[in-house]
Amino acid sequence: MLNEKIREILAKEGAATFATVGKDGPHLAATWNSYITVWSMNELLIPVGGLHETEANVKMNNNVQLILASKEVHGMHGPGAGYVLKGQAKFESFGGRFEQVKSRFPWARAVMVFQPADVKQLV
Amino acid sequence: MLNEKIREILAKEGAATFATVGKDGPHLAATWNSYITVWSMNELLIPVGGLHETEANVKMNNNVQLILASKEVHGMHGPGAGYVLKGQAKFESFGGRFEQVKSRFPWARAVMVFQPADVKQLV
Repeated sequence: MLNEKIREILAKEGAATFATVGKDGPHLAATWNSYITVWSMNELLIPVGGLHETEANVKMNNNVQLILASKEVHGMHGPGAGYVLKGQAKFESFGGRFEQVKSRFPWARAVMVFQPADVKQLV
Repeated sequence: MLNEKIREILAKEGAATFATVGKDGPHLAATWNSYITVWSMNELLIPVGGLHETEANVKMNNNVQLILASKEVHGMHGPGAGYVLKGQAKFESFGGRFEQVKSRFPWARAVMVFQPADVKQLV
């Protein structure tokens, strides 16, 4: 699921934007590629500073979409690779995943655990 | 609306991810910062290669959200600035905006004209 190309993208700095669904429609938020940890082969850990609206949305509807892309990674048509990942997320404020994230980002109040179920290369 | 900091972000390469609303919920797509043209002070032009689902969604609901961010631009807490822009979009396949985009991107089949109405700095 989280293939070599996605790991290459995560190794380049850039914005990683994700969408949740709220009562007024989609809600966008973002983190940086360098803040994302690949965990146990099929989970992405995102440190949670703010993300209050994302968290409230996930409580009602845990579907999350995330785009990971970098112009510095070779894609389907030359420079530039990008993926859309669809899956489910949960927020955790204790346990191993949280401790891992907290050790890298002391400001993290929680971790958003994202489990992609569907991964599609865009470019 | 499209302030100096946003122009600084656009001058750095990176993924620019946007959301539309479809019948099955939010749909994410992306372009590169370097592909975006600032037009007439308050419009962003995005060249359209694929974007078929985005186009279909915009016909039904023209609300678009876009995140522009770069870790290379100084933000509210040091390195890294990002904005969420909310507004309306339309697709055009002729006229001045299209010609402008087509001259830079010969593969463009249309231009997505995005008019942000609400701009919020995230970081």
